[in-house]
Amino acid sequence: MPNSPQTIGESRLRIDAPAKCTGDTRFLDDLRFEGLAWAAPVVSSTPFGRILAVDGAHCESLPGFLDLVLARHVPGENQVGVICNDQPLLAQETVRYVGDTIALAVAADEATARRAAELVQIKYEEFDPVLSIEQSRAARSDYLHASNVACRHRLRRGEIAKGLRLADLVVEAEFRTPCQEHFYLEGQGCVVLPGEDGALTIHGSLQCPFYVQKAVARAMGLPFAAVRVIQAPTGGGFGGKEDLPSELCARAAVAAARIGRPVKLVYRRREDVQLTSKRHPFLMSYRVGVTRDGRLTAAEIRLDHGAGAYATLSSVVSYRAAVQAAGPYVIPNVKVDSTSWYTNLPPNGAFRGFGSPQATFGHERMMDHVAEELGMDPLELRLRNVLRPGDRTPTGQLLEHSVGAERCLKEAARAAGWGLSAEGAQSGSSGKRVTASRSKGGTGGGSSVPAAEGAEETGRRYLRGRGLALCHYGNCLGAAGWFLDGAGARIRIHRDGSISAAFGLVEMGQGALTAVAQMAAKALGVSTERVLVEPTDTQQVPDSGPAVASRNVVMTGNALRDAADKLIPVIQAAAAELLECAPGDVELAGDRACVRGGGEAGSPDGGAVSLSFEELAEHLFLSNRPMAALGWWHVPPLSYDAKSGLGEAYFSYSYAAHMAEVSVDTLTGRVRVERIWAAHDVGRAINPAGIEGQVEGGTAQGVGWALSENYLEEGGRVITNNFSTYLVPTTTDLPEVETIQVEEPEPLGPWGAKGIGEPAIIPTAAAVANAVSRALGVQVDHIPILPEEVLNLLETAASTESRTG
Amino acid sequence: MPNSPQTIGESRLRIDAPAKCTGDTRFLDDLRFEGLAWAAPVVSSTPFGRILAVDGAHCESLPGFLDLVLARHVPGENQVGVICNDQPLLAQETVRYVGDTIALAVAADEATARRAAELVQIKYEEFDPVLSIEQSRAARSDYLHASNVACRHRLRRGEIAKGLRLADLVVEAEFRTPCQEHFYLEGQGCVVLPGEDGALTIHGSLQCPFYVQKAVARAMGLPFAAVRVIQAPTGGGFGGKEDLPSELCARAAVAAARIGRPVKLVYRRREDVQLTSKRHPFLMSYRVGVTRDGRLTAAEIRLDHGAGAYATLSSVVSYRAAVQAAGPYVIPNVKVDSTSWYTNLPPNGAFRGFGSPQATFGHERMMDHVAEELGMDPLELRLRNVLRPGDRTPTGQLLEHSVGAERCLKEAARAAGWGLSAEGAQSGSSGKRVTASRSKGGTGGGSSVPAAEGAEETGRRYLRGRGLALCHYGNCLGAAGWFLDGAGARIRIHRDGSISAAFGLVEMGQGALTAVAQMAAKALGVSTERVLVEPTDTQQVPDSGPAVASRNVVMTGNALRDAADKLIPVIQAAAAELLECAPGDVELAGDRACVRGGGEAGSPDGGAVSLSFEELAEHLFLSNRPMAALGWWHVPPLSYDAKSGLGEAYFSYSYAAHMAEVSVDTLTGRVRVERIWAAHDVGRAINPAGIEGQVEGGTAQGVGWALSENYLEEGGRVITNNFSTYLVPTTTDLPEVETIQVEEPEPLGPWGAKGIGEPAIIPTAAAVANAVSRALGVQVDHIPILPEEVLNLLETAASTESRTG
Repeated sequence: MPNSPQTIGESRLRIDAPAKCTGDTRFLDDLRFEGLAWAAPVVSSTPFGRILAVDGAHCESLPGFLDLVLARHVPGENQVGVICNDQPLLAQETVRYVGDTIALAVAADEATARRAAELVQIKYEEFDPVLSIEQSRAARSDYLHASNVACRHRLRRGEIAKGLRLADLVVEAEFRTPCQEHFYLEGQGCVVLPGEDGALTIHGSLQCPFYVQKAVARAMGLPFAAVRVIQAPTGGGFGGKEDLPSELCARAAVAAARIGRPVKLVYRRREDVQLTSKRHPFLMSYRVGVTRDGRLTAAEIRLDHGAGAYATLSSVVSYRAAVQAAGPYVIPNVKVDSTSWYTNLPPNGAFRGFGSPQATFGHERMMDHVAEELGMDPLELRLRNVLRPGDRTPTGQLLEHSVGAERCLKEAARAAGWGLSAEGAQSGSSGKRVTASRSKGGTGGGSSVPAAEGAEETGRRYLRGRGLALCHYGNCLGAAGWFLDGAGARIRIHRDGSISAAFGLVEMGQGALTAVAQMAAKALGVSTERVLVEPTDTQQVPDSGPAVASRNVVMTGNALRDAADKLIPVIQAAAAELLECAPGDVELAGDRACVRGGGEAGSPDGGAVSLSFEELAEHLFLSNRPMAALGWWHVPPLSYDAKSGLGEAYFSYSYAAHMAEVSVDTLTGRVRVERIWAAHDVGRAINPAGIEGQVEGGTAQGVGWALSENYLEEGGRVITNNFSTYLVPTTTDLPEVETIQVEEPEPLGPWGAKGIGEPAIIPTAAAVANAVSRALGVQVDHIPILPEEVLNLLETAASTESRTG
Repeated sequence: MPNSPQTIGESRLRIDAPAKCTGDTRFLDDLRFEGLAWAAPVVSSTPFGRILAVDGAHCESLPGFLDLVLARHVPGENQVGVICNDQPLLAQETVRYVGDTIALAVAADEATARRAAELVQIKYEEFDPVLSIEQSRAARSDYLHASNVACRHRLRRGEIAKGLRLADLVVEAEFRTPCQEHFYLEGQGCVVLPGEDGALTIHGSLQCPFYVQKAVARAMGLPFAAVRVIQAPTGGGFGGKEDLPSELCARAAVAAARIGRPVKLVYRRREDVQLTSKRHPFLMSYRVGVTRDGRLTAAEIRLDHGAGAYATLSSVVSYRAAVQAAGPYVIPNVKVDSTSWYTNLPPNGAFRGFGSPQATFGHERMMDHVAEELGMDPLELRLRNVLRPGDRTPTGQLLEHSVGAERCLKEAARAAGWGLSAEGAQSGSSGKRVTASRSKGGTGGGSSVPAAEGAEETGRRYLRGRGLALCHYGNCLGAAGWFLDGAGARIRIHRDGSISAAFGLVEMGQGALTAVAQMAAKALGVSTERVLVEPTDTQQVPDSGPAVASRNVVMTGNALRDAADKLIPVIQAAAAELLECAPGDVELAGDRACVRGGGEAGSPDGGAVSLSFEELAEHLFLSNRPMAALGWWHVPPLSYDAKSGLGEAYFSYSYAAHMAEVSVDTLTGRVRVERIWAAHDVGRAINPAGIEGQVEGGTAQGVGWALSENYLEEGGRVITNNFSTYLVPTTTDLPEVETIQVEEPEPLGPWGAKGIGEPAIIPTAAAVANAVSRALGVQVDHIPILPEEVLNLLETAASTESRTG
């Protein structure tokens, strides 16, 4: 079919884009319901304490006040912990962070609800709060929970001592990455509608409708079947709407059932920042053994991360970080200890990458430390160790297919002009410790940026450098979440030939609707325009697990193929009746059914040789055939041992290499990322434009985390709680991004595809930090790399240089 | 499983009853939407004419007025005919009845919309209207459409002339049945919500969501996939919400798309009566040949019915009436002509029974005429001719299974004490032409009611009589609607063991939700309480055809079984893992999985011998198995010849015999139905209490049609347009009903079940008229049998008696 549309591999405009551009999209807070009441959270003002008294007497007199919902009003289980049961839905005894929700004030309008929440008086016995990982780790009593350990993961491969003995060089370093706030454009919000017989319908800005269904059923003591969750168009999630909506929805559900009216609960920005999860901050220590010729022999890694007040998804983050901590390299001896520590801070949870950006910061900064010590080009070092088909990952998993790490490195290098020649690192390297000139108090020293770096240097004020980072990313949930790793989809053909598709994951800005439409179309051999994708609703498909971990394309794509595999024989049989051929000879492509290889000779008696999809649909209908099918897919069994951390941690991996070019203003200390070359092994591109969007967005978020997003709290109170204090990069802050799509088809992916949503952000910060390190000639081992930090580093470098030079 | 719940065959309270009793149910008009606009129809005030001008200028100045929607604004096809394309969505040129919709006035509130509609000035060129079947039939020009025939059906079996020659006696009679207004408690109504990209979501009080989807797609030029229809809880339909909602929804859709706001269109009572369909009035002439010993040799039948201004569903009514007109009897020679005639009256359409109550009035009154002429007991005559397994119906269809006509007759007779003895008709018969005494102007004559009839006689004022009527009813849509006769269902098992079921037909008061829950439970071997049935929504299941023709139990039940058949092997495989047995040995019953015949010896190593459904669901989930399935069922192919009317008209038939006992007040002329014994062959009872409810409701509606519902129009304007002029019977008017459930399992029905919704009403009016005829000793050949009519008949009878006595 020469003119048949590609459907996949063809760049498509996002289906949801027009309405989002015109403002037609109605987000959660735009939805209106009759008799709607509003809820406002009553939260702890102290980071750690015991509740002595809750006094709501002052609310009663407020006109419009309806209810004060407390823990004792929860009809089911007062528990919202998603993995461990450590988190009350409403705090009753102990509060563990500023923002721990104690009650909901419910009123006829938002202002009254908020005023009522303020009027609730709470007395505490206050305890000394634990406000850092170090403090939590050091504590020997006064734990937040039974202990201060939220979870631990470990990996033991080979013999670390032996590995280090085999090394010619052992390099050690420590790294630190901070919290990152999601700053989705739309805050958390939900509306719970009480129905007949106790049933509830929930609209929410959320990623995981099936989590919400479970959490609400648990809190309300309802069967799952009585809880329906409909995802409202969602203005960003990034992991922040994985577990949090369960809290909001379950609390609002208690209120709605009590007052018998719809209840809306929306977090406004400052509240959202204070009450919701962030990216886990990490302390990382690496000890790596390497031979003189650059072969890695051992990696001993310790990851400590701050869980915040409750474990929430810490174990997922910890697991993934542990699995990926040694990077996409062949290392025979690996030891990883990954521990999440409770602190009296907002619970940290899922954030794009689930620990991968942190672990990648660790292993990729480490690779640059090692390269520096070896005097070897960083690209060369990576190529010497990178995972290739036939190799085993640090968890001992044999990789046979779809291992695009080397190609990603090489394609990014090629695009960036990072050559590999006899002289080693040329264009990618400033290579030496330098001191930049600064206008005030500068200590002199010439810029060492080589000519190849570009010509825009204006005197000595700007230093340039390039850095690269490589990562692997386990697709979907992996062994630790295997039991959740199935997904459903439904395809329905209508009588007029239009097609509806339903899926169990969600559109939250990542382009899921468009990819789902393309994949459904591809599966049936029709054009993408024919497919309308329905909003996600727990009534439509079976529990498809969470919309996280870059799962949508792989899970939904395979489920759509399963649904299509059920429909295609039905369609072929129907077409065969009209085409007068064997059902197996019917080919579906290009919006038509025709006889395979039939050309114009489809029917010996001059009948039809092909049918339009409209004709086909009408015949399917008139011949009373089933025109819908549910599909299901789950990841294959994984052989993994949780105790040793060895085995098949994920069924497949995506790979990415980012190269960053930065300029550092030695006068202001400001770092500017000029360009990113981002090569991603996506297996097979479904929507290349969508991948570009993901990579540009992920890169932006990575640049923000690396350079400007300086999350600060004081006594457990977040002080960077709005856009003027928490500096999310704007378009003017962002680099030009060149996205390179590497296709190493994954046999288990739909048409070979693998996830891209999270890989997009994972290597960015490490690449930027490597570039800044190389520009400054100083190892920059923590982020964000703020201007004042740069100025300090420049001074350090200058003094080192002056001592050694 | 001795203690396992029955699930089917067990009387269940209606699932939807509590909320309907407490008022919690939110019907269409209770739903509120932000920015809602209201529409009011602008309708023709003349029964037949040409539109010369539509002037909406006066609306413009009304505050709150938004739009006047005219035919030229319909973006797609301005056509809403469901079977033939004879009905514009909005009349543009010709109007054909008082109420023909010309425009919609749209405003911010209902009062303004209605005021605006009144202000629209329309000029017509008026034509002479056709206001009766006779007038339409006689016309030779000035037709309503291309001709005055909306549709025709015929049946030609054997040779009618020969059949009449073989008869010892040929009996002729003519019958007439009137319009019947549905008088559902909730009027027609819908709300159309415009969505993104032109998509529409519709909430409506309706029976056939997939009809509405198609009609709106057609009018709007949208793909089906872009039109979602959600049935609101519906306060009665009775066929009146089969086709009509398509009109309302398509018109409101045009308005909603134009103004970009939700639009509500609700008909208030008088408007609803004027604008919507009724039961077709029938003129019937029967000529029947019979041998002296009561064998029917021939039936020549002519049915003429009033279609109203547009054909709508007339052809369905005509087809069914033609197929069933000769009754459930063995008659070798049959000729039927069935014709629908256009008139300038509101279009008539579907009404519980689709022509069957009319045809049954014809054949059952006729059987009593014949019995009278033969001097034979009416029961005896029927038993002599009734269809039994191995017989052929009047269309020549061989019946092999599930033919419960004889049992229905006998069980009703037994219950009523209508004995069959040597003296023929005893308890069922007043037998003779009598004249009742009346206080004013009475002409004397003794009551002939035998002692066995009951003792409450107070002198000679009351006459009593008993009548019986038998019918057959073709299940589902039959050969004429075969292409529409498929249905889907979905079963989903949740992780907590609760179950959701979705179906494509609807709950409209008939108890569908309860039967669906019972059948889903039965199919999976679980208790009914575990199943929650979702509201009908076109997104949930494939096009399942219309919720009419008593289809739900048969179609949805079979579709649920198909879905369960897909799930059961999955469940068995999962259970087998835990029970350590072969999957095929797992038995699902009583909310448990156990090893078939295993008793306590399920597992040799002392493992579990049975699992609760909760354990099973959790294991299904954790082992990543698909937990939902879509089922589909369609009726088997039917061999039927439309030209001769011969063949398999329906795949199976339900049967019913009603015996009515009436008393006639000779003073007032008022007939009171004292008791009805109603025997119904339902194949297999799913919810016996639901069947009782259906039979009591159907009987009530039949009694109303027979006695009090006197539909009147004047010049095309309905004058009985509210509850004070159109006398729907109240509880005090109703007989005691004894429901007898006869079970002759239908092999193709789910667990043997057949439809009951329509059979419930079909024989009632005929039984009542037969009883009144026998009480009065005069053949009462038309309904309603109003008091004044009774008084006239009594006079006729008296004068006949005085002439002949």
